[in-house]
Amino acid sequence: MMDERFGLDRKVRLLGPVPLDSGGSFAPVEIAYETYGTLNEDADNAILVCHALTGDQYCASTHPMTGKPGWWARMVGPGKPVDTDRFCVICANVLGSCMGSSGPASEDPATAVAYGMDFPVITLADMVRAQELLIGHLGIERLHAVIGGSMGGMQTLTWASLFPQRVARAVVIASAARHSAQNIAFHEVGRQAIMADPKWRGGAYYHESDPPTAGLSVARMAAHITYLSEAGLTEKFGRRLQDRTDKSFGFDADFQVESYLRHQGLSFTGRFDANSYLYITRAMDYFDLADAHDGRLAGAFDGTKTRFCLVSFDSDWLYPTAESRRIVHALNGAGADVSFVELSSPFGHDAFLLDNPELDRVVSGFIGASA
Amino acid sequence: MMDERFGLDRKVRLLGPVPLDSGGSFAPVEIAYETYGTLNEDADNAILVCHALTGDQYCASTHPMTGKPGWWARMVGPGKPVDTDRFCVICANVLGSCMGSSGPASEDPATAVAYGMDFPVITLADMVRAQELLIGHLGIERLHAVIGGSMGGMQTLTWASLFPQRVARAVVIASAARHSAQNIAFHEVGRQAIMADPKWRGGAYYHESDPPTAGLSVARMAAHITYLSEAGLTEKFGRRLQDRTDKSFGFDADFQVESYLRHQGLSFTGRFDANSYLYITRAMDYFDLADAHDGRLAGAFDGTKTRFCLVSFDSDWLYPTAESRRIVHALNGAGADVSFVELSSPFGHDAFLLDNPELDRVVSGFIGASA
Repeated sequence: MMDERFGLDRKVRLLGPVPLDSGGSFAPVEIAYETYGTLNEDADNAILVCHALTGDQYCASTHPMTGKPGWWARMVGPGKPVDTDRFCVICANVLGSCMGSSGPASEDPATAVAYGMDFPVITLADMVRAQELLIGHLGIERLHAVIGGSMGGMQTLTWASLFPQRVARAVVIASAARHSAQNIAFHEVGRQAIMADPKWRGGAYYHESDPPTAGLSVARMAAHITYLSEAGLTEKFGRRLQDRTDKSFGFDADFQVESYLRHQGLSFTGRFDANSYLYITRAMDYFDLADAHDGRLAGAFDGTKTRFCLVSFDSDWLYPTAESRRIVHALNGAGADVSFVELSSPFGHDAFLLDNPELDRVVSGFIGASA
Repeated sequence: MMDERFGLDRKVRLLGPVPLDSGGSFAPVEIAYETYGTLNEDADNAILVCHALTGDQYCASTHPMTGKPGWWARMVGPGKPVDTDRFCVICANVLGSCMGSSGPASEDPATAVAYGMDFPVITLADMVRAQELLIGHLGIERLHAVIGGSMGGMQTLTWASLFPQRVARAVVIASAARHSAQNIAFHEVGRQAIMADPKWRGGAYYHESDPPTAGLSVARMAAHITYLSEAGLTEKFGRRLQDRTDKSFGFDADFQVESYLRHQGLSFTGRFDANSYLYITRAMDYFDLADAHDGRLAGAFDGTKTRFCLVSFDSDWLYPTAESRRIVHALNGAGADVSFVELSSPFGHDAFLLDNPELDRVVSGFIGASA
């Protein structure tokens, strides 16, 4: 008989509650997720993949709204670095997001309308606590690995810190243990762009036909620049004009890079919720793993048995190598088993999503190695 | 008898016309400017200071709207590096801006209402051609120096390229000879933020009481991040909270860097016009000095007798040192006399506006040196 807990496009309502960093708790919590591959009898071959800010549970299957391949289809699948012939891979939409897990667009059972800004402000730790409920629900005691890039890496670090006994291996890619002032600043620009859009309506736009797409689009454009390197942008677009041989001397998208950015902004609004963008960026800005340990990052990992693998990219200026190094130093200070590599790529932060044979080798080697 | 052409808060209407890169011409052109110090009998002690994107003619006198000291008061004045006891310093509001020179907020003589988006799309060269009319009007054949940082440096390069016989020395600080894809991308975010604001009204907001301040504020916030270095932001703000000891778990400005950015955005809207922001950013994006020379930057300076001084800052990621070096190589290729220094500063692009004794020495030494 099929176990309905496993497979594509799953959704579960868990009683929880999820204790929240802001105080109080959240319950019940809905979690939308997918699994790939088969959990073995010992339930010790599960790998949790954590997604980034605007990612979702569709890491290895076709996205239902865009029709595009999953965001990490090149990394997760049969025979891929995260091999679903061998591992049972789980990917869950984070708390606060908009692809089926509880978030500001969800209906508040107390009022029978969407939460909007009445959704509680959450943290990375809250997201991870919700995922931990899911892992328990799936009957998994200990994850073979937790793995993620960007905000996925922050969740991975948080998993290892909060639930060290449940995480055998942690793979943290292009990430950081805290949000820097510059990281916060870019997110704040995005939030202000959304909240400045009159169609945002204080977050209560779900019953209207016109959500704040203009503001969300500007937020996405600003963020998108931070995902790419200056050199990558120059290589990809330079100063080339879009479908024309001369400047138009107007305010159309004369340059390819303008056209590209506008497209990124607009297409994003078709698949993402503006309030979720506010909530998740806020969670990231609040993220500083050392906070709960008197500012001593090593304190987040004291006595850990989890084995860590850190990867950074040399052209990533959003979460630069120095942030990964800081984590490595803390892990060393905590006596943890850690390997670290800085990979070369011209593609900036986005490199973790792109073809990179070296990244593949690092990931498959690390998760395949026996503990 | 006082010569009314010189002094503070001057404004002149010149018949021109200014030939425009977009074709056609613009006339008459109004130019608001200030002069400091006295032009000598030979009229050979004049220095033109060119301002940046959101700068103005008040480089060394109190700003009439903000009440703050001029944006380069530390550089220009009696006994300062650009010494007004010795030089006659001229600073003019650029064409397209909003502090008195012709721009989108000016009245179109043909319609007797503000131009709005009917103002012609201008270029850096157009701005410089308008300034050249002013210099002629002031009776100056040859400028002792043209000097500017950021967009001011782009104007300085353009001056030296278009009117080499009128420029004895050119000081180009924290600048570039072209706008990169990343530079264009950030400007496009700002423009989209403005144009997404319903109060922008296609640029026709001058007769309304509520200009598009929300969009302009977001544009300024995004741009402001590019003026600062990551290290500078971390040093200045880090993750420190604003007027509170704990996170609020809300969307207020919890962090000092958020509060600072919001203030930067809001205060900017009190002194700047949204349409001018569109026009001037567009002019900068169109800027590529090599364009008119088959992509060969040296061609912009062939045979020049102008002496050049280039200065970059090591933490400036908006116009990084590599862009200055590219100009130096081109000038070398053109056989020009050029000196170049990269200065150290933690403050990113903004360093050219801040106290920097080394910058002072470089500038005063270069403009004081006999030709």
